[in-house]
Amino acid sequence: MPSAAGRGQGPERDRRPESGEQPDYAKERYGVSSMIQSQEKPDRVLVRIKDLTEEKADEVVWVRGRIHTSRAKGKQCFLVLRQQQFNIQALVAVGQHASKQMVKFAANINKESIVDVEGVVRKAHQKIGGCTQQDVELHVQKIYVISLAEPRLPLQLDDAVRPEVEGEEDGRATVNQDTRLDNRVIDLRTSTSQAVFCLQSGICQLFRETLIRKGFVEIQTPKIISAASEGGANVFTVSYFKSSAYLAQSPQLYKQMCICADFEKVFCVGPVFRAEDSNTHRHLTEFVGLDIEMAFNYHYHEVVDEIADTMVQIFKGLQERFQTEIQTVNKQFPCEPFKFLEPTLRLEYREGVAMLREAGVEMGDEDDLSTPNEKLLGRLVKEKYDTDFYILDKYPLAVRPFYTMPDPVNPKNSNSYDMFMRGEEILSGAQRIHDPQLLTERAQHHGIDLEKIKAYIDSFRFGAPPHAGGGIGLERVTMLYLGLHNVRQTSMFPRDPKRLTP
Amino acid sequence: MPSAAGRGQGPERDRRPESGEQPDYAKERYGVSSMIQSQEKPDRVLVRIKDLTEEKADEVVWVRGRIHTSRAKGKQCFLVLRQQQFNIQALVAVGQHASKQMVKFAANINKESIVDVEGVVRKAHQKIGGCTQQDVELHVQKIYVISLAEPRLPLQLDDAVRPEVEGEEDGRATVNQDTRLDNRVIDLRTSTSQAVFCLQSGICQLFRETLIRKGFVEIQTPKIISAASEGGANVFTVSYFKSSAYLAQSPQLYKQMCICADFEKVFCVGPVFRAEDSNTHRHLTEFVGLDIEMAFNYHYHEVVDEIADTMVQIFKGLQERFQTEIQTVNKQFPCEPFKFLEPTLRLEYREGVAMLREAGVEMGDEDDLSTPNEKLLGRLVKEKYDTDFYILDKYPLAVRPFYTMPDPVNPKNSNSYDMFMRGEEILSGAQRIHDPQLLTERAQHHGIDLEKIKAYIDSFRFGAPPHAGGGIGLERVTMLYLGLHNVRQTSMFPRDPKRLTP
Repeated sequence: MPSAAGRGQGPERDRRPESGEQPDYAKERYGVSSMIQSQEKPDRVLVRIKDLTEEKADEVVWVRGRIHTSRAKGKQCFLVLRQQQFNIQALVAVGQHASKQMVKFAANINKESIVDVEGVVRKAHQKIGGCTQQDVELHVQKIYVISLAEPRLPLQLDDAVRPEVEGEEDGRATVNQDTRLDNRVIDLRTSTSQAVFCLQSGICQLFRETLIRKGFVEIQTPKIISAASEGGANVFTVSYFKSSAYLAQSPQLYKQMCICADFEKVFCVGPVFRAEDSNTHRHLTEFVGLDIEMAFNYHYHEVVDEIADTMVQIFKGLQERFQTEIQTVNKQFPCEPFKFLEPTLRLEYREGVAMLREAGVEMGDEDDLSTPNEKLLGRLVKEKYDTDFYILDKYPLAVRPFYTMPDPVNPKNSNSYDMFMRGEEILSGAQRIHDPQLLTERAQHHGIDLEKIKAYIDSFRFGAPPHAGGGIGLERVTMLYLGLHNVRQTSMFPRDPKRLTP
Repeated sequence: MPSAAGRGQGPERDRRPESGEQPDYAKERYGVSSMIQSQEKPDRVLVRIKDLTEEKADEVVWVRGRIHTSRAKGKQCFLVLRQQQFNIQALVAVGQHASKQMVKFAANINKESIVDVEGVVRKAHQKIGGCTQQDVELHVQKIYVISLAEPRLPLQLDDAVRPEVEGEEDGRATVNQDTRLDNRVIDLRTSTSQAVFCLQSGICQLFRETLIRKGFVEIQTPKIISAASEGGANVFTVSYFKSSAYLAQSPQLYKQMCICADFEKVFCVGPVFRAEDSNTHRHLTEFVGLDIEMAFNYHYHEVVDEIADTMVQIFKGLQERFQTEIQTVNKQFPCEPFKFLEPTLRLEYREGVAMLREAGVEMGDEDDLSTPNEKLLGRLVKEKYDTDFYILDKYPLAVRPFYTMPDPVNPKNSNSYDMFMRGEEILSGAQRIHDPQLLTERAQHHGIDLEKIKAYIDSFRFGAPPHAGGGIGLERVTMLYLGLHNVRQTSMFPRDPKRLTP
């Protein structure tokens, strides 16, 4: 239990400043608590800052929060106490409860320290601009430091949430990406980071909620694998006892095995590893894959429709449940609300190519889309159809992996698709070949060593239902939904060729 | 669309047996369909086998299922069609719809092949013993092979679900574990496997549902890390571009960083890697960790209570939603229903030691529990308190990791706990040291190189709330809840020192 210095049972660390000559009538009302080591189970209730509203006016409450800012002014000290995305102004003023020494103590607590405060909730005379709790302030009667922060912070939270444009126009400080990532524990405390990752948690939740409602089963697939399934490029090697192994580039093979094992509709959420030396705004060496695989009856569009509807349910759920978080992020990174159609717009690849050609792009029928052309097409689609989310269907067979089912009518095409948000790819998928003979032929056509994919092909020898699926990149969905510009903003601890820490 | 041979648009593969001399009046009613390549979108509805009940009597339905067994008998062929955990008897008999050739064709379809069948649902004259749909059978009018299985199966599904005791007593075939795992795609089709992994999906769902309701946020933590945090033993090495890295042994550090970053209550579900050369019934080199970390106000029991309640919610949810699956597994692996108390029983370590000593075990106050003693204690607790789930609290400090908070009263004890199901550990957790100074002292005491854990210790320098947490092994929970005997039964694609495939 936090208490005035001298009462605690743990190691004593009274950092109280010298109190000078005057007797301190408030000396029991402030101090540095002994470390909370679970000494006691007090029945004190700590109230959440977000619950401090006018309804609580004149109540005495206990609050735990961080010192966000402090400003001493004569016999008063104004603190802003922060708790996640919420904050409130607290006033320590010389008077009945607080001595001069206590005000000085409060003013000297390092920013980001965690404190327990007892105070009276008072209606504010005017709206308090800088705080989320604008209508009330807290008149402090007791204040104890629970965990002291070091005096010098590697970055200032207020700088870290400043819109770049303000930094550029007014010459005010902003924080660069490497400083943020090097000091992620502090950067993640900003209202923007809190909002981004609460929303990301929501994406996972909505993804799974929707699929479980649709009858899907969650599976867990191994990340250490014995053979690099897709040719062996871009794969990390692991030393495995006296031998070696690889990190899975996708759960593809295992999802398909589950389909062959009659689970019918499966999904998984887990890390995916790519040893690509790409230093772009949208590549990570480790990211979170939201993967789906599903047996269908007669046409892979049954699966495309399910995936597209799952995305729509995610978008709707975010709108409904995460409006606060979206607005918080928008304050720092202004962005148009995300638009989508229901049902989702599905264009054929050749239609996309035609739109690009009309806009002046020269490309062949079987060329893959470059990143700039993807973005351009996204803008053209937005203009024409007013949607930030659409499906591009029937990719040329030549640009897809060997296990992609060819189109039954035009053998140059395939039953495959990508999905896009704000002009960037977030999902790639296809009907997979479920016939071992055709699969063998296509692997040979791609020059793949059949011996290496024997176990994969053998999975289809004992009756395999037609099936399709796809993999979604979680960090990309978060980034593009919020209109952010770098996938490192939506990965808590990003991994790229140059970053392995923290 | 599946159709009689000759109509499909895809590659033609008519494996229909020679029809002999007689004209075949049913020749359009059976055959091998061309491969489903998404040629068409027919409006045919496929009915689920589990929905074929007396209410559907005399309706004509289409069903897709696997040939589970087939038995020809004169002019009739009895098939059992299987779909996941459900199956139904189907009869092909010479008559108006089926010719002699059609019956022969049906009888010759390899087991495990997938077929589309049109048939009339008929009330059975007597209960059909071997099937889940006991009150009806299907009178087949059309039958087309959708995906043909090879004739020789590496294992028989009926053998794979036979209780071991029957195998031993009657000399009937059972399937050993390596054969199962080598042919996992088939082994996972058994009713037992289907039930085990549907229930496991349910555990994940209940875990997250409960925690999200309690205000937790889901986080994603990196699996590739730059330093082996807990001393460097039992860690897999990854080659990372021109340098090397490690696979995370737990999300511990990252969960704690999220707490220091004010997320307050976090959980994650993901793979955990242990390079231990242990070949036991309960060790895997890669398993799924259900991890929790939570800031608390004054006492780590706030966290213990939340975790214990989460486990109770899982147990209750499984009882309510997965009764069918539990019964299916029990048929092969008979087991007492899982018992638990509410609130959960919490014993102190010294009480556990006293119970063991009373039962004749010799051990010191600060000795760790051996596996046999854990199991014995589980039995003693079950006898005395009638619960299969309990918490052992306040472990000796000496047997816990360096970051464990010492007990405030007895410095030989710690604020740490394990949780047990049926006498085996499924969770290990503790209050963590949130003070950088004490953490440094404890690391030094353990002889840990401070340079290697600098980033970890630095995370606590800018204000850290008191917190506690724990990690749960998903495969163990599934195994112990169902009373199974090997963690390889509850990992779809288990990894151990000797197994990396499939």
